[in-house]
Amino acid sequence: MSVSFDYRIPTRMIFGAGKLEELGTVSLPGSKALIVLSAGTAMKKQGYLDRVVALLKKNGAESVIFDRILPNPIKDHIMEGAALARKEKCDFVVGLGGGSSIDSAKSIALMAKNPGDYWDYIGGGTGKGLPVKEGALPVVAITTTAGTGTEADPWTVITNLETKEKIGFGTGDTYPVLSIIDPELMLSVPPSLTAYQGFDAFFHAAEGYIATIATPVSDAYALKSIELLNTWLPLAVADGGNLEARTNVALANTLSGMVESTSSCTSEHSMEHALSAYHPELPHGAGLIMLSLPYFEKFADVCPERLAVMGQVMGEEATARGFLKALAKLQKACGVDSLKMSDYGIGEGELSVLAENAHSAMGGLYDMDRKRLAVEDTRRIMEKAFR
Amino acid sequence: MSVSFDYRIPTRMIFGAGKLEELGTVSLPGSKALIVLSAGTAMKKQGYLDRVVALLKKNGAESVIFDRILPNPIKDHIMEGAALARKEKCDFVVGLGGGSSIDSAKSIALMAKNPGDYWDYIGGGTGKGLPVKEGALPVVAITTTAGTGTEADPWTVITNLETKEKIGFGTGDTYPVLSIIDPELMLSVPPSLTAYQGFDAFFHAAEGYIATIATPVSDAYALKSIELLNTWLPLAVADGGNLEARTNVALANTLSGMVESTSSCTSEHSMEHALSAYHPELPHGAGLIMLSLPYFEKFADVCPERLAVMGQVMGEEATARGFLKALAKLQKACGVDSLKMSDYGIGEGELSVLAENAHSAMGGLYDMDRKRLAVEDTRRIMEKAFR
Repeated sequence: MSVSFDYRIPTRMIFGAGKLEELGTVSLPGSKALIVLSAGTAMKKQGYLDRVVALLKKNGAESVIFDRILPNPIKDHIMEGAALARKEKCDFVVGLGGGSSIDSAKSIALMAKNPGDYWDYIGGGTGKGLPVKEGALPVVAITTTAGTGTEADPWTVITNLETKEKIGFGTGDTYPVLSIIDPELMLSVPPSLTAYQGFDAFFHAAEGYIATIATPVSDAYALKSIELLNTWLPLAVADGGNLEARTNVALANTLSGMVESTSSCTSEHSMEHALSAYHPELPHGAGLIMLSLPYFEKFADVCPERLAVMGQVMGEEATARGFLKALAKLQKACGVDSLKMSDYGIGEGELSVLAENAHSAMGGLYDMDRKRLAVEDTRRIMEKAFR
Repeated sequence: MSVSFDYRIPTRMIFGAGKLEELGTVSLPGSKALIVLSAGTAMKKQGYLDRVVALLKKNGAESVIFDRILPNPIKDHIMEGAALARKEKCDFVVGLGGGSSIDSAKSIALMAKNPGDYWDYIGGGTGKGLPVKEGALPVVAITTTAGTGTEADPWTVITNLETKEKIGFGTGDTYPVLSIIDPELMLSVPPSLTAYQGFDAFFHAAEGYIATIATPVSDAYALKSIELLNTWLPLAVADGGNLEARTNVALANTLSGMVESTSSCTSEHSMEHALSAYHPELPHGAGLIMLSLPYFEKFADVCPERLAVMGQVMGEEATARGFLKALAKLQKACGVDSLKMSDYGIGEGELSVLAENAHSAMGGLYDMDRKRLAVEDTRRIMEKAFR
């Protein structure tokens, strides 16, 4: 075994119930924030936006609000937010909400300092892959969901509506400088979203564990994340007010973000991005859940020992079958074992197009699989998932 | 269970056999380095110093050499190195060698930017505890031993010969910005030092695991470190040329540094610092080995469940006894089970003075124990360790 890695997670992470208050006293990276949040009303209704504005003010920072982000955030809003940050001379960007808001904050922070179009810098699909020369404004992430792990990684996933591409991107400058993970802000997430987001975190960990570039460090994060989710996600879904469950799911999610910073997602994510690029109403986590059993089954013979360890950590027998059984069981325990693509308007006839898209838009993640999948393999996995 | 933490390990860590070469291409934090190394001849004889100078030069950075560091580094050399860094207008500091060189590099980096005496800033003992206002020069750590974990934490341990205090210190600015951990550089460490240093790493992990401020994140690092050392340290001691063993011990050591950045050492370290402050010829790891069985025995009833998990990870039964048995076994497997304080000139008559010193110079770590130890308890542990 040869172990080598290049480790860097520069983000300061303040984690714990009630920790949002520290935003009022912690050292901030600037004096004027662009606060990026969803076009939905939750952050306002829950009072989170007002609290964040007040805490920033207490801490000597002004705020400008940009509240247009969609659940699957789009490039147009990145460009719009970046223009606003420039016009208002904001010197840092706060992402408040779930992955979509925080990812958008990262991309806006990048485009606030770099010229041209966001897609000029994207490395996959029709992106031009130009180097990012001017860095990014510092980003502060305040999470209100536990799903993407974006508070602990540099990644941001944005959809280009014109080209129907949903592509992940990030640089050394798009790690948040500060993340505040306060499980109290997650108490009101409804059960289905709790489950979808929790499974997103789960697959970040599980894919990161079977990825070719996994290291003993990413393995430690991944297995702890999987163990925590297996125990606590069903409890958080069943009773959203259970702060202990929320805290452990939030922790698992942060750990899964650290997996993404030290290992990688695999092609399961490419496949899901294709589904939700064409069907933006499909929650990312739901798409992953649908794909997951046939996807991991495909790797049962490729890296049975890796699946076995995950199975063991989840309390099943230490075999690839044990893992698949545990995964099915966890889906059932969270009430998400009978999701159907057709419920989200996906037709079986379009699976070939979606499979092509997975390879063209997010082909890079196929390099992370321990066995190279062809477009045909992707289509078959999608078909199995469809039925 | 309430989980909360403030996580920050900003260091970029490049890990792996042969990775020293990346010093020639990686982004450096400046253009003129003060290279800090031991007063011994190993770094020169092995050719490591020449390689580092050449790689820095290739990468566009000049070097100035400061080669006066002792195995237990002293304050006078910190002040001397800092004066040299200022005089030569170095804009970063490279620590090359074991913990003593890298710790010294951190302290020199601090004193190169701040006025007064190093002990003005020290928080314990006779230190004045003044705030560090001017930060520190960026530090690059290049490790050639696997013991202190200093490449992954902000800590530096320096001895004040005048006051006979050996005290740990560090700030947010004393994390290395870059650490290169290349196990090939560790192949020539002799067996006894390999064992002492490996056990230092082991106790960073084990103390961090039983510390009051342990978190699930530090636990993940600690258990992985303990597991790796239990398997690989005896092999690295038996055959220093075993690169796989060296790599896994180096990894365990880096993980134990991450434990120190996210949890803390406990009073076992205060006790050992007293021993080696008075007897600088005693290797730190050897002192810890001597103290360890009576120290951990003291906590067998305090946190049996924590000791049990460590015992299990080490392949013994999951009880506090299992851990103590595993620890004794690992010491035996590494040939360090019969170390004696008297071999290093420590007399039983001075244990009371040493116990007092542990509490006065490093009292802070006693707050990290799950049970408050009195000076009398410390003396008894030292007595048991003496016999």
